[in-house]
Amino acid sequence: HLFSGDRVGSRDNPELRSVMDSGVKDNQNFTFRRVRLVIYGDISNFLYLYIQPDFATTVRNQSGGESSLHFAQLRDAYADIYLTKDHEYRIRAGQSKVPFGWENLQSSQNRIALDRNDAINSAVPSERDLGLFAYYTPTHVQELWKDLSKKGQKTSGDYGVLGVGIYNGQSLNKEEANDGMYFVAHSTYPFDLGFMSDSLSGQVLEVGADAFSGKFKPTFGNFKTFDDSINISGSTIEANSGKNRDFTEQRVAVHAILFPQPFGFQAEWNWGNAGALNVDNARIEQTSLSGGYVQAMYQIDDFYGNWIPYVKWQTYRGVWKANANMPKMEVDELEIGVEWQIMKALELVVNYSHMNRTNMNNSAFGQAEGDVFRAQLQWNYY
Amino acid sequence: HLFSGDRVGSRDNPELRSVMDSGVKDNQNFTFRRVRLVIYGDISNFLYLYIQPDFATTVRNQSGGESSLHFAQLRDAYADIYLTKDHEYRIRAGQSKVPFGWENLQSSQNRIALDRNDAINSAVPSERDLGLFAYYTPTHVQELWKDLSKKGQKTSGDYGVLGVGIYNGQSLNKEEANDGMYFVAHSTYPFDLGFMSDSLSGQVLEVGADAFSGKFKPTFGNFKTFDDSINISGSTIEANSGKNRDFTEQRVAVHAILFPQPFGFQAEWNWGNAGALNVDNARIEQTSLSGGYVQAMYQIDDFYGNWIPYVKWQTYRGVWKANANMPKMEVDELEIGVEWQIMKALELVVNYSHMNRTNMNNSAFGQAEGDVFRAQLQWNYY
Amino acid sequence: HLFSGDRVGSRDNPELRSVMDSGVKDNQNFTFRRVRLVIYGDISNFLYLYIQPDFATTVRNQSGGESSLHFAQLRDAYADIYLTKDHEYRIRAGQSKVPFGWENLQSSQNRIALDRNDAINSAVPSERDLGLFAYYTPTHVQELWKDLSKKGQKTSGDYGVLGVGIYNGQSLNKEEANDGMYFVAHSTYPFDLGFMSDSLSGQVLEVGADAFSGKFKPTFGNFKTFDDSINISGSTIEANSGKNRDFTEQRVAVHAILFPQPFGFQAEWNWGNAGALNVDNARIEQTSLSGGYVQAMYQIDDFYGNWIPYVKWQTYRGVWKANANMPKMEVDELEIGVEWQIMKALELVVNYSHMNRTNMNNSAFGQAEGDVFRAQLQWNYY
Repeated sequence: HLFSGDRVGSRDNPELRSVMDSGVKDNQNFTFRRVRLVIYGDISNFLYLYIQPDFATTVRNQSGGESSLHFAQLRDAYADIYLTKDHEYRIRAGQSKVPFGWENLQSSQNRIALDRNDAINSAVPSERDLGLFAYYTPTHVQELWKDLSKKGQKTSGDYGVLGVGIYNGQSLNKEEANDGMYFVAHSTYPFDLGFMSDSLSGQVLEVGADAFSGKFKPTFGNFKTFDDSINISGSTIEANSGKNRDFTEQRVAVHAILFPQPFGFQAEWNWGNAGALNVDNARIEQTSLSGGYVQAMYQIDDFYGNWIPYVKWQTYRGVWKANANMPKMEVDELEIGVEWQIMKALELVVNYSHMNRTNMNNSAFGQAEGDVFRAQLQWNYY
Repeated sequence: HLFSGDRVGSRDNPELRSVMDSGVKDNQNFTFRRVRLVIYGDISNFLYLYIQPDFATTVRNQSGGESSLHFAQLRDAYADIYLTKDHEYRIRAGQSKVPFGWENLQSSQNRIALDRNDAINSAVPSERDLGLFAYYTPTHVQELWKDLSKKGQKTSGDYGVLGVGIYNGQSLNKEEANDGMYFVAHSTYPFDLGFMSDSLSGQVLEVGADAFSGKFKPTFGNFKTFDDSINISGSTIEANSGKNRDFTEQRVAVHAILFPQPFGFQAEWNWGNAGALNVDNARIEQTSLSGGYVQAMYQIDDFYGNWIPYVKWQTYRGVWKANANMPKMEVDELEIGVEWQIMKALELVVNYSHMNRTNMNNSAFGQAEGDVFRAQLQWNYY
Repeated sequence: HLFSGDRVGSRDNPELRSVMDSGVKDNQNFTFRRVRLVIYGDISNFLYLYIQPDFATTVRNQSGGESSLHFAQLRDAYADIYLTKDHEYRIRAGQSKVPFGWENLQSSQNRIALDRNDAINSAVPSERDLGLFAYYTPTHVQELWKDLSKKGQKTSGDYGVLGVGIYNGQSLNKEEANDGMYFVAHSTYPFDLGFMSDSLSGQVLEVGADAFSGKFKPTFGNFKTFDDSINISGSTIEANSGKNRDFTEQRVAVHAILFPQPFGFQAEWNWGNAGALNVDNARIEQTSLSGGYVQAMYQIDDFYGNWIPYVKWQTYRGVWKANANMPKMEVDELEIGVEWQIMKALELVVNYSHMNRTNMNNSAFGQAEGDVFRAQLQWNYY
C-alpha cells in the first residue's frame, strides 16, 4: 500500500482507514485478507452441504493484550435441501449469505473491485447470517448463469430469481441479542438482449430488487472525534437511547448489471431507515440512509492472460451498525484499477483510489481524505 | 424454542437455562449446537488416526468485550495403535472420549434425545480429555455391534467390553492444573437374548459398569443467588476451601440398554463423592452425589422415513465441576419427543420438556422451572 | 515428564521452564505439542498451494479468565509460483518459513531432537512470517535431496541453494507494527563426498550461510525477577527505551551437516546485534548476541524399526524478542536421546536433558537448572 499525505493522523487530519480493508492503515506491509477452505458435496440428490472456514480471523486480548492473527472461524455452514429433482426449489438452512444486493452475493474471487461498496454492504456486514432461506431458480436461468460462468463472466452465484428468508440479524458470528428476526426478500432476473436486436444476442442484462426489515440491538462504547471536540461516554449514549432497546431497520435496493462482452456496466443503490447515532444529542435515533455505486468495465481476453480494467464510483450516507453506538458514516470514493488473470488460479489486482471516508476503525472518529494505491495477489483452488 | 412463563427471569423466578444446551435462554433464535468435520483414516493395519474439530466454539472478550462465535477448536485428536491383527487389543493415545457411562460415549448423531443426562455427563463434561487408554473388544462383539448398526440401531461405538485409561481430568481443552491424573475403568457387554427363548432371538441387551477416581482443582469466582440472599466473593470461597487444593472425585456407574426392536429401554445411574460448594459455610467440601435417567423408545421403520418416539426422565443431585466454585446442581426433567429420520443424512427431532433445574449459566444461581419446546434439524455426512 | 529438584520454584530456585516446550513446567501431564493438518496440491505446472493449520493453539482470557486450548490457527499458507518448467526458480508468496538457519527449516517430523536450538530459533520464533520469498534450486540438487529422503535421511526441505526474501518481521500471527520490513538471504549446498575418496561416495555434507536485517518493535510489560530483587514497570521501560521505537536486528549464521550414513554430525552458529533489555538501567539497548549447537547422531536400520541415538549440546547468550521488553536469555543445555521409528507413521523419542536456562515463561525471571526426562509419541500421516 502507498498513501499520499499523513498516514498516522493528527488533530487536523485523521488517519485514513476503511471498514472494507483493515490493511488500509498506518504500519502495514503484507496482510492476509482471507484464507478460506471450502468443504462441500452432494450427499444425495436432495441434500448438499457447504462449509467454509476462514483462516484469517484475529483474536484479541491475547498475550500482553496483543491480538493474535489467523485463527479459523466459520464463514458458511449450510445445507441445501432440494424440494424437487430439477433443483428449482430449495431450502437453505444454516449460516450463509443473506440475499440482499448483488455485489454482496458475488464471491470475492468473482468480484473485480477489491472491496464491496459500503452503501449496500452496510445492510449485512460480512454478508452472512444464521437463518432459514428459500430459493426458486427456473432451469433455464440455472443454464444461463452456468453458461455465463463458462464464458468467464463473473455472476453473483445462484441465490434464486426469487428468494425469501428469516435470520438472526445481529451480524455474522455474533450472538443473537433479541427475540426479533430479520425478514428478507430477493429478486433478480437475467435477460438475453437478443430479443431486442440480433446484434445484441448473447448480451445479458440482469436486473432486480430486494427488501428487508428487522430489529437491531446496538452495543455501546465511548465515542470521540479525532480532535476531541466531541467526547461522549458509552453509558451516556446507552441511557439516552434507552436500555435494551432495539432499532428497526428497513431497506430497499435495486441493481442492474450488463455483463462485459466486452463492455460492461454495473450499478446498485439502496435507501432505508435505521437507528444511527446523533452526536448532537448523544443518542441513537431512527435516521434515513442512502447510497450505492456505479461501475464500468471492459474485458480483454487472451493477451498474456485476461484483463479487466474498471472504474467505480460509490457514495454512502448512513449508519454502520457493526460499530458500537451505530455511528453514521460518509463515504465518497472513486477508484480505477485492472484485474489481470495471469492464469486460471492466480490473479493480480492493481488499484488506485481517491477516498473520502469516515474513519470507523478506532474510537477517534473523523473524516479522512487520501489516495491509496493497492496491489492484491489472489490464488484460488477449484 | 418456545418457553412458558418468564424467560428473562426476575427476583422471584430465575431464568431457565440448561448446561446441556446453551440455546435454552432468553433472546435466542437460530443457533448452531455443533458444526464438526471429521478427518480419519487407517494409516496402516496397526494405526488409525482421527481428528475432529468443532466450528461452533465461542471466543470471549473480543471487540467491545463481546463474544465472537464459530471458531474452530479440537474435539478429538487421537491415534489408535492396534496391538493385534484382529483389532481386539488397542491403545488410544490423544484427546478422545473418556470411557465412563454409555450415553456419554454415544455420538450426538446416534443419540435419540437432544441432550445427554446431567447426572453422568457431570462426570466428564464435554465427554473428552487428553490421555492414554487401552481397550479390549473380542471379535464376536465387534461383529455384533456392527450388525446392530447396520440394522439402524444406535450403539455407543466401540470403547471395548473392557477399557482402562489415565487422563488429565481438568476437562476438555483446559490446561492441566495439578500433577494428579484420573484413572478410569469401563466395562460393557451386549447379550443376544436368544439364549433365554427363541422368541427373543435377535433382541440385544447391553449391560455394564464403570468407575473412576481422580483429583480435580477448582477455579473460583463470585457466587450469588438470583435474589441476592447469598453473595460470596470468590476470594472468600478460595480462602475457606484452601488455596491450591485438589478435591478427590470418585464415581461408579451402571447401565442397561435394550435396543429398540421395536421396543427399547435404556437406563443409567451413578453414585459418588466429590468436592462441591457448601453455600452455608462458603467453602468447597467433599460431598456425595447421585443421579441418572430412564428412557423408553419405540422404533417405526419405513413410514415416510424412520420414526423413534421416546420418553426420558432424569434426576441429579450433585456437583457441576465445570463452573467456578464447583457448585451443586439439582435437576429433575421429563421429556417426550420424536426423532424423524427424513433420509439417511437428515433428521429432525421435536421435543417437549418439563425442566426443573438450577440455572448454572450465569452468576445468579437459583432453581428455575419451566416448559421448553425445541426443534432440531441435523444433517450428517458420511 | 520427570524433573529432578524443585519444580514449583522458590525464591532461591526459580521454576524450570523452556520457551521451546511449554509442557516443561509445574503441574503438567499429557499435552499436545502440535496437531497439524496439511492441505496442499499442484494447481497447475506453475502453481502449488500449501495450507497448514495447527489445532493446538491456546486462546487466553476466556471463561473465568482461564485459557482455552486447542484452537485452530494458521501456521503456513502460501503459494509457490514456479517461473520455469523444471521448478528451478520459484516465488513463494504468503505465510511460510523464513529461510534463516537449517534446523529452523527442518520439519518437526524430520528433526531428531525434541526441540530446536534457542540460539538460531530466537531469530525467527515459530520459524514463520508473512512475506515474499524467491528460491533457486538446480535440478541436480532437487534430485540429491529427494534421494536422501528416500534413504530415510532427514533433510531440511527445499528452501533453495539460494533464497532471498522480505517479510513483516513481528513474528508469526502477530500484527505488523512498523513500516520497515526484514530482508533475509539464505544459502546451502549439499556435496557428495565421493570426489574426495571412493570410500566416501554417497556420504553427503551440506554447508551454508545466512544473513538477515530488519527492525523490530517491542511490546512492554512489567519485569521482575523471581526473588523480587529487580521489579520494573513496563511503562518505565517504555519511557526509557523510547516510545514507538524500533530496534535494528542483524544476524549471520553458518551451518554444516554430515547426514548419518551411519555416523552423522550437525552444527550451527549465529552472531548478531539486536535490541535487548538492560536491567541495570531499565531500558532496551542494542546488544550483541551469539550461540549455536553441535550434535552427533548414529543411524541403525531394521532392528525392530529404525533407531537414531543422538547427543546435542547448545548454548545461547542474547535476546528472546518474543517476550515483552525483549529480555536476554542464557541457555546451556546438554541432551542425549534416541528416536525409535516403530513404523513409518509412528515414532517415539526418549530424551534426557541437563538444562540451565532463563525462565522466560512468566514474569518472574531467573536462571533455573535441572534435569528433565521426556518421552514424545508422534504420529504422522502422508
